[in-house]
Amino acid sequence: MSAESYLSEHKKQYLDELLDFLRIPSVSALPAHAADVERAGEWVVERLKGAGAEHVQLFPTGGHPVVYADYLHAPGKPTVLIYGHFDTQPADPLSLWRTPPFEPRVEDGRVYARGASDDKGNMLAPILALEALIKAEGGVPVNVKLLFEGQEEIGSPQLGSWIAEHRDLLACDVVLSADGSQWSETEPALYVGFKGLAALQIDVRGARSDLHSGLYGGAVPNALHALVRILDSMRSPEGKVLVEGFYDDVLFDEADRRQIAAVPFDEAAFKRSVDVDALVGEPGYTPLERLWARPTLELNGIWGGFQGEGVKTVLPNEAHAKITCRLVPNQDPEKIVQLLEAHARRHAPPGVRLSFVRPGGGARPYLMPADHPANRAVGEVLTALYGREPYVARSGGTLPIAELFLRELGAYLVSFAFGLDDEGFHAPNEFFRLASFERAQLGYCRVLRKLAEANGAELRRVT
Amino acid sequence: MSAESYLSEHKKQYLDELLDFLRIPSVSALPAHAADVERAGEWVVERLKGAGAEHVQLFPTGGHPVVYADYLHAPGKPTVLIYGHFDTQPADPLSLWRTPPFEPRVEDGRVYARGASDDKGNMLAPILALEALIKAEGGVPVNVKLLFEGQEEIGSPQLGSWIAEHRDLLACDVVLSADGSQWSETEPALYVGFKGLAALQIDVRGARSDLHSGLYGGAVPNALHALVRILDSMRSPEGKVLVEGFYDDVLFDEADRRQIAAVPFDEAAFKRSVDVDALVGEPGYTPLERLWARPTLELNGIWGGFQGEGVKTVLPNEAHAKITCRLVPNQDPEKIVQLLEAHARRHAPPGVRLSFVRPGGGARPYLMPADHPANRAVGEVLTALYGREPYVARSGGTLPIAELFLRELGAYLVSFAFGLDDEGFHAPNEFFRLASFERAQLGYCRVLRKLAEANGAELRRVT
Repeated sequence: MSAESYLSEHKKQYLDELLDFLRIPSVSALPAHAADVERAGEWVVERLKGAGAEHVQLFPTGGHPVVYADYLHAPGKPTVLIYGHFDTQPADPLSLWRTPPFEPRVEDGRVYARGASDDKGNMLAPILALEALIKAEGGVPVNVKLLFEGQEEIGSPQLGSWIAEHRDLLACDVVLSADGSQWSETEPALYVGFKGLAALQIDVRGARSDLHSGLYGGAVPNALHALVRILDSMRSPEGKVLVEGFYDDVLFDEADRRQIAAVPFDEAAFKRSVDVDALVGEPGYTPLERLWARPTLELNGIWGGFQGEGVKTVLPNEAHAKITCRLVPNQDPEKIVQLLEAHARRHAPPGVRLSFVRPGGGARPYLMPADHPANRAVGEVLTALYGREPYVARSGGTLPIAELFLRELGAYLVSFAFGLDDEGFHAPNEFFRLASFERAQLGYCRVLRKLAEANGAELRRVT
Repeated sequence: MSAESYLSEHKKQYLDELLDFLRIPSVSALPAHAADVERAGEWVVERLKGAGAEHVQLFPTGGHPVVYADYLHAPGKPTVLIYGHFDTQPADPLSLWRTPPFEPRVEDGRVYARGASDDKGNMLAPILALEALIKAEGGVPVNVKLLFEGQEEIGSPQLGSWIAEHRDLLACDVVLSADGSQWSETEPALYVGFKGLAALQIDVRGARSDLHSGLYGGAVPNALHALVRILDSMRSPEGKVLVEGFYDDVLFDEADRRQIAAVPFDEAAFKRSVDVDALVGEPGYTPLERLWARPTLELNGIWGGFQGEGVKTVLPNEAHAKITCRLVPNQDPEKIVQLLEAHARRHAPPGVRLSFVRPGGGARPYLMPADHPANRAVGEVLTALYGREPYVARSGGTLPIAELFLRELGAYLVSFAFGLDDEGFHAPNEFFRLASFERAQLGYCRVLRKLAEANGAELRRVT
């Protein structure tokens, strides 16, 4: 029997298992749910064992656990590490859910539950594909390792050091991420790039205390005005970043431009989707270039002085702002933070003192060649599954694990997952399409077969 | 017997009475103390009756009450309205008080208690002066009306309409305010001007909701950047207001310049007092000119987006700022608010929507001629009390009642009070100097005699 027939025969059972998995409220952000995260990890362990995976183990990390398993019976063939996560976002605001978030509901070909798409439905698929290959076909044509974590939704605080400590265990030629999405129900995409991140908090201090705006106004420096001056100097009204040196290391060329231009972008629909009548951004670049391949600087928060009702005639002596920049190849988060600080100092008006908090969260940008052998293999599978070639896409978001696997294991991460943007990943009434769930299972069977044709050394080649 | 001797003989009794008055925790801002404010009003009523004042009455206002009294036995002589307030600021933070705020303590010639200087010590003085004149000298050489309110520290919300409803009762030639201060222990001052006030809240709205800074950053308008752009456009880095039309109506001439230049100002000491190493302000004007006679624009508060610990990669869709301007003759608060709104709209970057809140609190500027007969009378008394002529001073603060009396009663308000800036008016360990308490009693005897020499019609002349 083929793995495909096996999957088809077990369709009902696999859906029931997904519903069981979704009933575990494994919310990693809430300490009250720590035991549920652990329980979800144990559920994954049992499911992997049932699938025929070996060396299945729940590892402590100091925070939420990770699950490791492998099936290494293809000597001479590539080793593929499959990644996903079994923790979920919190479910609040509960009042916006039509049915309870951890009581999954199947309706119109969709399963509604917190974590359905992000990431339980997606991460269960490769386990089921593994089972189908082992049980129906007697084995897997590549060597497979699986790593599922329980802390992705809180930024994977312990994952980096755990991976660094288990480099040998995790050694592989390429990573497939079962956490991600496709372009649409009918259009696949290869995600080849994610932006990096640099974060800074600026604290401005003026006089010894808040002062009476009448008795001191017009003469004593106001921390809010100073902050506003500094922040306004960092970006032109159109959206070009004016921080000196900010673009110096950016790699962006005609090839990037062509790659991005090949992807459709409906500016009017995009504006409608966020309800704005105009876009901003760096002049000379298309919106998609700005979103995907040009670095950005965004104010995430600002505060100081009086925020209550009515009037308080205070001249505030403190003002604060939080900034993050999304970075592109070949920018360095540490250097960008230094540039931001230097710029702020240069543009601070007299009479105020600046200090900075570097809140962490920095990440390097990630970009892999679209014609890398792993992308070619995934691209061929997607083309077969959808009947059309995938778009070569990027994300303005940051995927720290991509850079983490590359740094620690020397392996590229290729996204191979089937979420869709309308599925409410972090929002109420999250759902996953059952068609995607099945497509993912088929896809994993096929991509493992396809990668068996590749050369491990070529897959491992990092440029 | 002279009134002065009478005051001297009753020194001990008057101090005890001040301590009694200070024991009433008449905090107008705290609803739990509403009965105490009322009780303080009743205390004032009884004290006025004891002094020999007539038509003494506690009037309801819809909020905290006011006390009215008069002594009108000087036909053909001017009528003087004496103003003060019997409510106090809250006392918190209590932990910073060396002794409880409503258990007055006399030490080293000072009485420590909440309200000692602001304003119970100051407002009791004219009542005692009235008593001394009546009981020792058989009468008062002018017609006196007294109005004490219980809501000054919360902005006198009901006072304006109460005064408007009692115009005939309060009709007078000039107002003396027993709420205010002198320049120093040895230097008197005539305060001839107070700034007006205009307040505006700006609300900026961008996309339909907060967005992911990675998925939308660099293309979708960020409400914080838009706000920062608008606010930065309102003031030059040096502090000149750039709102179009802002200075158009300002009256400021060489006479103002000479009047202000005659007042000593130690810039180094001023900077030390607020702990800044540089001042800002409108170029071409001295710090004291900026503080007293040039209009100002100060940000009082700003907020939007994420204010917590760490990093939140949000592209905020809302941002808010509160602004107040201090106004000088001949600026109009309503027009200034309109100019601010028009400026904000002109400088808003594309893609955001603005709305405004006018939180009230507007007040017209107040300035009276230094050589007005009332100022001449007060100046002569101060010269005699201190042995030197008073500085002609202004305040960057706003005194809405000054403009209120002028509008409703057609009478100028002349400050005649004896607080000093180090007495912690709204701070812990507020105190009043006993020397000031006695000087105030003497001063009120003398100023009432001096005003008896003036012509009511001249006092009433408003320019």
